[in-house]
Amino acid sequence: MNTTCVLSLSCGDKPGLVAQVAGFLAAKGGNITDAEQYNDPATQRFFMRVEFDPGIASPDALRAAFAPIAAENGMDWKLRAPGHRPKVLLMVSKFDHCLVDLLYRKRIGEIAMDVVAVVSNHERGAGSAGMLEGAPYYHCPVTRDTKPQQEGQVRAIVEETGAELIVLARYMQILSDEMAGFLSGRCINIHHSFLPGFKGAKPYHQAHARGVKMIGATSHYVTTDLDEGPIIAQDVEAIGHRESPEELVAKGRDVERRVLAKAVKAHLEDRVFLNGARTVVFER
Amino acid sequence: MNTTCVLSLSCGDKPGLVAQVAGFLAAKGGNITDAEQYNDPATQRFFMRVEFDPGIASPDALRAAFAPIAAENGMDWKLRAPGHRPKVLLMVSKFDHCLVDLLYRKRIGEIAMDVVAVVSNHERGAGSAGMLEGAPYYHCPVTRDTKPQQEGQVRAIVEETGAELIVLARYMQILSDEMAGFLSGRCINIHHSFLPGFKGAKPYHQAHARGVKMIGATSHYVTTDLDEGPIIAQDVEAIGHRESPEELVAKGRDVERRVLAKAVKAHLEDRVFLNGARTVVFER
Amino acid sequence: MNTTCVLSLSCGDKPGLVAQVAGFLAAKGGNITDAEQYNDPATQRFFMRVEFDPGIASPDALRAAFAPIAAENGMDWKLRAPGHRPKVLLMVSKFDHCLVDLLYRKRIGEIAMDVVAVVSNHERGAGSAGMLEGAPYYHCPVTRDTKPQQEGQVRAIVEETGAELIVLARYMQILSDEMAGFLSGRCINIHHSFLPGFKGAKPYHQAHARGVKMIGATSHYVTTDLDEGPIIAQDVEAIGHRESPEELVAKGRDVERRVLAKAVKAHLEDRVFLNGARTVVFER
Amino acid sequence: MNTTCVLSLSCGDKPGLVAQVAGFLAAKGGNITDAEQYNDPATQRFFMRVEFDPGIASPDALRAAFAPIAAENGMDWKLRAPGHRPKVLLMVSKFDHCLVDLLYRKRIGEIAMDVVAVVSNHERGAGSAGMLEGAPYYHCPVTRDTKPQQEGQVRAIVEETGAELIVLARYMQILSDEMAGFLSGRCINIHHSFLPGFKGAKPYHQAHARGVKMIGATSHYVTTDLDEGPIIAQDVEAIGHRESPEELVAKGRDVERRVLAKAVKAHLEDRVFLNGARTVVFER
Repeated sequence: MNTTCVLSLSCGDKPGLVAQVAGFLAAKGGNITDAEQYNDPATQRFFMRVEFDPGIASPDALRAAFAPIAAENGMDWKLRAPGHRPKVLLMVSKFDHCLVDLLYRKRIGEIAMDVVAVVSNHERGAGSAGMLEGAPYYHCPVTRDTKPQQEGQVRAIVEETGAELIVLARYMQILSDEMAGFLSGRCINIHHSFLPGFKGAKPYHQAHARGVKMIGATSHYVTTDLDEGPIIAQDVEAIGHRESPEELVAKGRDVERRVLAKAVKAHLEDRVFLNGARTVVFER
Repeated sequence: MNTTCVLSLSCGDKPGLVAQVAGFLAAKGGNITDAEQYNDPATQRFFMRVEFDPGIASPDALRAAFAPIAAENGMDWKLRAPGHRPKVLLMVSKFDHCLVDLLYRKRIGEIAMDVVAVVSNHERGAGSAGMLEGAPYYHCPVTRDTKPQQEGQVRAIVEETGAELIVLARYMQILSDEMAGFLSGRCINIHHSFLPGFKGAKPYHQAHARGVKMIGATSHYVTTDLDEGPIIAQDVEAIGHRESPEELVAKGRDVERRVLAKAVKAHLEDRVFLNGARTVVFER
Repeated sequence: MNTTCVLSLSCGDKPGLVAQVAGFLAAKGGNITDAEQYNDPATQRFFMRVEFDPGIASPDALRAAFAPIAAENGMDWKLRAPGHRPKVLLMVSKFDHCLVDLLYRKRIGEIAMDVVAVVSNHERGAGSAGMLEGAPYYHCPVTRDTKPQQEGQVRAIVEETGAELIVLARYMQILSDEMAGFLSGRCINIHHSFLPGFKGAKPYHQAHARGVKMIGATSHYVTTDLDEGPIIAQDVEAIGHRESPEELVAKGRDVERRVLAKAVKAHLEDRVFLNGARTVVFER
Repeated sequence: MNTTCVLSLSCGDKPGLVAQVAGFLAAKGGNITDAEQYNDPATQRFFMRVEFDPGIASPDALRAAFAPIAAENGMDWKLRAPGHRPKVLLMVSKFDHCLVDLLYRKRIGEIAMDVVAVVSNHERGAGSAGMLEGAPYYHCPVTRDTKPQQEGQVRAIVEETGAELIVLARYMQILSDEMAGFLSGRCINIHHSFLPGFKGAKPYHQAHARGVKMIGATSHYVTTDLDEGPIIAQDVEAIGHRESPEELVAKGRDVERRVLAKAVKAHLEDRVFLNGARTVVFER
């Protein structure tokens, strides 16, 4: 991951796109080490992720040279330089299992990111103490009445820190439409159910009442349409009749943290593409 | 399974129930080889399944002797004799993967049952040819107008065959409330989604459109409330962005047949208990 | 799958391969609909599978035109014409769950293949009756003494039928080195354990004795080194302490048949590549 | 878990055991809320776990009254008082993901235990800082030459702290036979492979070289026979051909920590019984 560039792009499909991109990289002396393409027959949209050794070419020079090709084909695109560490802002409420997990994965180098801030409507819990490694912790309490002001605070932090990705790591406040719009496309949430089942509040209690035999978690992009954003990752775990709602909550924590970590890592490695209401995820 | 009896029961909880049942069996010379109890703290209901070697006691004598204990405690109960093979009626429409699978499992002795009839609103497909082993195949076509008559036909077959369990093995007709009521408590359906997600028609197409990352299947008891009956078994499989709705249908077949087989086998072994809108399943 | 060609290839890695292949297809008027590449950093080997709409180009013309590129780069390659149905020979012993499953998947169009023969050292069981759809069933009994002759018979059938793939669908005879060599590269086996655990005979009994908490199955290419061939697919299922060796056998059947079907389908769709002792599998 | 007692026992099977135990509890005014029995037909051994509301009876009085029944039947048994928190000693080497995970689960109340000490042959890493909550951290470095002394140190800590369970949370030193014997029956290890596959060192590298399609982890009791102790829990995760040994290591961390946590929790809740070389685990 360290010495390779990643070019990720999507555009309307037409013949010759792979040849054009691959030809460009070959001409610049790049060597493709991993590549995936996908052409959605339903949306006629083309998606490509190329990991390549840039040789002596600099990322800036490659970007400048690629821009005309991108423009000509109407591409959404991004070229990530070797070793780039995206700036990430983590938001959390009372339950900090996802926060602690993401901070731990960052510390041991599993997820390459810089945590620029942690924002919470609760005071810092003991769980993440000693894990922040210098990242500032902002306590931004919120009530129904102060939500506009609090969201303003959070927006300011996002802007000041230059966060490229905002992760709602069990942030239990419903965002206003304005806030959701502001974060759209760069904000990942973890919902503690296997969507579309059990939207809304207390999904584990809903799951218990319905008597399902598996519970799950869903990581998705935040949109203005609550619990309806494009899904990045999901997983489930089997449950038995003996388990109380509280035991489902406990079991769910494991699913939540691994699903959220998977989604965040995939996003930060430019493996996730929006495709209408769905996503394309080029997995390892 | 061959030489043991199974006593299964449920009733309102009170102290001493296990002792009473176990004491009864010990007094009759039975030896418990496997037992599970569960006391639901929410419903205050007690569930018990005991597998035992009856020694020299006959099932009929045991039933007669147990009846007063059952009555005294208001038990729903059943004592299955060694080697009992329940009568099962299978219903199917066009897609016969679940039917073929159940017939195969029956043939090799994995599910102990007697298939007394196969009923379908379609003509017999080639898939199950040679698998029926003498079970009659009833072709009962149905239209919106003829549904009452067709359901009458099916009821007659159920009654004549003495079927103890009716399995909707991808029977794609919505039952009338009367028919659902008639079958209630002895009818298992397979729904091709991970309920409560994607109720209703074409769940794989719904799942594709929503962009979920796993599809599933749900086996449940039939009630008058469509897709809302108590769930017996569920399972899921991961899917990728490349898979079309048709590929989800194909992948779903595997999940459906194993989930339905698991539910049918558990029911026929008296491992499933109704607990309000939920089930208690004593798994191996 | 019907109207697209599949070009699959592997060769030593060097810069520009993707560009060369994609450029070739673009020049011929082909439109890439799905493509995956992988460059193994350890073996320095490059793997590519491209699905493309050939436009007006014929498969034969494309093959002729691509041959020089392939030769120049030392490629192992194959170009599959639209709608090609490979010839497959199935081998089985007493237990026919994998055979019945593959025949069923073929019948409903899930696996595109022509079954040219079924070969068994046992007489035809009832399970596959009515499923053969005209495929001849060869009963080739074998003893320790007659193994050379029997293997000669089987070789003759392979040659006469022109089988491109031989599937050992629970064929429980150990092949001689000569036979394994003869079939090498075009023969898939299902082993009823999660290799490398429990090699050899009676793996479920071994698993029970060891007290593992999951059992599995492994589909792999046959080589002269028993149970050591390159693995194509694996899966597992959780088990409990109550389950006897016989119950593990029953549970294992489900895993075996889905793992074997997955491997056969992937192979027949040219998604599997040998990479030393390992495989590259481009999954959906 | 808070207000109930747990009686767990095993002994040679004979008729009437369930009745005797249940009758005893009923006579003492206890109410069984959850119970499981299992009678292993192979070993003729009987296992029982009963969770019950003791009413006004004290655990000590119950133990005294039960002792004769236990003696008469040759039972291994234990009666856990409500709210008992077992003393646990955690051992770790360099990689602290399992340690951090167990400490986190303890903090939030998911695993009820008192961590009496952490022992490591490495200095305390940053990961667990702020998570120890007062538990002493013993740095006990070890070389081939100093192993006897170091193991003596660890034994002393075990004895001084009164640890009831020792968890090898990725402690990467091979224990001497004496040490393994000393800890036998009260020591749980996590092995980073799906045993019996890939015993010994660097299992993820072995798994990569063999080309398996899933990796796993195994939690087992420590015996003098390395990697051969009775298995408590196992799980796996699918892998792809793109993943390097280092990526398997990363993916494996998730499996390891959840498998170890599951085993530790089950053991501490008296759900695990030794049954020869196997275990009986009464799961939720």
